[in-house]
Amino acid sequence: MTFTSRVFPLDTLDVPGGTETVLPGGRHLFPLLPEAFAGVERIGVLGWGPQGRAQALNLRDSLAGSPIRVTVGLRPGSRSAADARALGFTEEDGTLGDWLTVAAASDLVILLIADAALAAHHEEIFGVLKPGAVIGLSHGFLLGHLRETGGEFPPGHGVIAVCPKGMGDSVRRLYEQGAEVNGAGINASFAVHADPDGRATDLALGWSVALGAPYTFRTTLESEYLSDIVGERAILLGAVHGMVESLYGRFRLAGDDEVTAYERSCEAVTGPIARTVSRAGLRAVREELGDAERDVFDRAYTAAYGPAREIVAEIYDEVADGTELRSVILAERRLVAREMSRIGGSPMWAAAPRVQARRGQVAVAVEPFTAGVFVATMVAQIDEFAERGHPWSEIVNESVIEAVDSLLPYMHARDVAHMVDNCSRTARLGARRWGPRFQAAYEQVAFPAAELPADAKLLKAFDEHPAHQALAAAARLRPSVDIAVA
Amino acid sequence: MTFTSRVFPLDTLDVPGGTETVLPGGRHLFPLLPEAFAGVERIGVLGWGPQGRAQALNLRDSLAGSPIRVTVGLRPGSRSAADARALGFTEEDGTLGDWLTVAAASDLVILLIADAALAAHHEEIFGVLKPGAVIGLSHGFLLGHLRETGGEFPPGHGVIAVCPKGMGDSVRRLYEQGAEVNGAGINASFAVHADPDGRATDLALGWSVALGAPYTFRTTLESEYLSDIVGERAILLGAVHGMVESLYGRFRLAGDDEVTAYERSCEAVTGPIARTVSRAGLRAVREELGDAERDVFDRAYTAAYGPAREIVAEIYDEVADGTELRSVILAERRLVAREMSRIGGSPMWAAAPRVQARRGQVAVAVEPFTAGVFVATMVAQIDEFAERGHPWSEIVNESVIEAVDSLLPYMHARDVAHMVDNCSRTARLGARRWGPRFQAAYEQVAFPAAELPADAKLLKAFDEHPAHQALAAAARLRPSVDIAVA
Repeated sequence: MTFTSRVFPLDTLDVPGGTETVLPGGRHLFPLLPEAFAGVERIGVLGWGPQGRAQALNLRDSLAGSPIRVTVGLRPGSRSAADARALGFTEEDGTLGDWLTVAAASDLVILLIADAALAAHHEEIFGVLKPGAVIGLSHGFLLGHLRETGGEFPPGHGVIAVCPKGMGDSVRRLYEQGAEVNGAGINASFAVHADPDGRATDLALGWSVALGAPYTFRTTLESEYLSDIVGERAILLGAVHGMVESLYGRFRLAGDDEVTAYERSCEAVTGPIARTVSRAGLRAVREELGDAERDVFDRAYTAAYGPAREIVAEIYDEVADGTELRSVILAERRLVAREMSRIGGSPMWAAAPRVQARRGQVAVAVEPFTAGVFVATMVAQIDEFAERGHPWSEIVNESVIEAVDSLLPYMHARDVAHMVDNCSRTARLGARRWGPRFQAAYEQVAFPAAELPADAKLLKAFDEHPAHQALAAAARLRPSVDIAVA
Repeated sequence: MTFTSRVFPLDTLDVPGGTETVLPGGRHLFPLLPEAFAGVERIGVLGWGPQGRAQALNLRDSLAGSPIRVTVGLRPGSRSAADARALGFTEEDGTLGDWLTVAAASDLVILLIADAALAAHHEEIFGVLKPGAVIGLSHGFLLGHLRETGGEFPPGHGVIAVCPKGMGDSVRRLYEQGAEVNGAGINASFAVHADPDGRATDLALGWSVALGAPYTFRTTLESEYLSDIVGERAILLGAVHGMVESLYGRFRLAGDDEVTAYERSCEAVTGPIARTVSRAGLRAVREELGDAERDVFDRAYTAAYGPAREIVAEIYDEVADGTELRSVILAERRLVAREMSRIGGSPMWAAAPRVQARRGQVAVAVEPFTAGVFVATMVAQIDEFAERGHPWSEIVNESVIEAVDSLLPYMHARDVAHMVDNCSRTARLGARRWGPRFQAAYEQVAFPAAELPADAKLLKAFDEHPAHQALAAAARLRPSVDIAVA
């Protein structure tokens, strides 16, 4: 999708079928921020979850030395107040306060409270906004919710979204690493949903630059919502969890001990496969295999693609229909008094510490069967998004880059719970809901078919896939900094 | 729930908190059928799926010698016409025809076409009904659909439901066995949703007697719908599938060979555990264990109850909300051009023939861990239904009797696909959707907790559970005839 800016220099990405405009980021652009934020004296960040925390910190750092103030707004009795104060947002200097008070005093109000809270309280927040204040979102959820309930954004206010393509924790970590490597950060999409005075695009771009996004691409709020909610249920969280559980079980049933089975499943995915994709793209995973291994990859790819695609299509239908959103609301009601169920309690995770202890001594290979299943599932999601008309930047970020650069490192550092449970409530629920569907599809449909000959047509489509070009173009805009997860 | 009849002698069931009226069935009641069917000269059975086929055959046999005619109505081009003709429903003698033509000529129109077809065509069918014709359903789906879409039943027509608590194939088989053992059959619930002329109750009871129901109890269309749709996603199909997959994997990982693991999981459930429950109720499963085994049962029960209950609650919320029904409609659209995914392709089912071949030579025991998980899941569903206010007859039929007497024998005869894929489309979709959730809950939450001490309070609640009384009362009304599955 194309756009223009009165403030920032833009670039063009070659994508299948044309070009997309992108904004390359970097700290050298910070002096331009006051111009992009013209008309905004106070930014109110509502919420101190992973995204709220990261964005408030990044914005404050980026805008240091400008007159623009960042204030954090919390719900009454929020348990986050102590951490916010410890990081320098305080009532005393007016940078911490009640969320409605902060919203009423801000020119840009960034809504980073949890989806369920947003569903419950958005009308109160809309009600206190200053005339001309701009509403900022990092997620299309509220649009979906308003549609389901027949509500609407308040007229007369800009509505913009800047959506980092990675979890909140990584938005802050990579920004900090960006002090050393200019441009390290998490890519973001932006959308302009309402623009009463023509300021909205540059305001959104400024916000994204201030967050440290290496590059920013354009989307719509609806497209963001769909790709984000579907992606977290598919390759980003749900499918990759179901996948490693099923692969571990398969290797154990075939006779591997626990450590070997873990290395051939989870460790292979989060280690060498993710790094290969990040370094050299999807085709490299297959090309760097020997001939016999490539045959195993091809059969696994062939067997897994169809079943994975069916589930991604099912997820997409249900997210687009509003059905999935209703299940999230119902779940939040049930979970008022209770913790979410444990994820990652199965025996495989007991092997993780032993595997992690021997890193450096042992080089874990790209397990070809695992790689075939992983790449097939990734391509299945890419294909579903392409069929549904998403912009290519969004497709490759939601299907590849966010996985290998932002999320899988968390599973690599510890386990699946560390990855999934550092994400939003909606993502955590979605992963629990759909991960098992992928697991069953691999165990009951894909693996039984994995001895069958590979499908040459399917593999040709993989080899010639337009996504490789889009992915390479995106990679050129990114500094290759691997996130350092503690 | 209570009711009265002008035609049939009734009985009373003692249930927790009171009594429920029941109609004991049997072939000796067939001479009373013309009186129950007063005003009905022609019954039109629309549809020739498993229920349509079974009900048309049973009704015709039961009403042989009366002036009441049973006609089968099929959609144009239906592939079922040949089988219907082979069984004596023919165009020549006016007992087979186009569904709308048959509907227009019938005094009782029994809608046994698939749910999706009913959703698409019910208005056409309503449009051709004779004045005063009664609409018959065997499932509450249409009520749910009308609610979702703001539609309604046509005024001036009785709306009744008779819902056999077992799959269509078993409704016919046990009826045929009932020629030898009077009263063999599948229990049914009945509901009267609209009764413009006071005939509806006895008409429904007559229909149920004619189907061969050993006993008939009363419910509402809404209650039937909820318990049926939830039940098939939980203990009846979904949960038991997820359960045996997870148990098999656990036993294999512990070192059992394939046959032993299958016998300790699936075979134990469908064989000795199901037979014990059928013969002597739920408590007997635990009481007939030795001390050490009972401890294993108790820990497994403790570990599995909570996670299973959470998922049953989630399913119930989503069925009651309409969300689950929307997902069924979406799935039917996606599956217009494609088969449903394979169920039961995982390695465990390859062991089934070997296990079945050695029946008779080897006595499979009640595996205590498996039994704990199974009984806990069954009680979790019972408790959820009780909390939501379902009548006790319905609770024990949908949670226990239908499982052990109608469905598990199909898995015992062959495999899970034989059981699940002989059920309705909605059931088949629901089992595929929720089975994996139970599997993941057992693998990730329940089994890791199964070494912890048993919860004495939970087990006391099991021992003192009001369901045992309701189950024993229901058992007294049933002849103990085990269904003979080919």
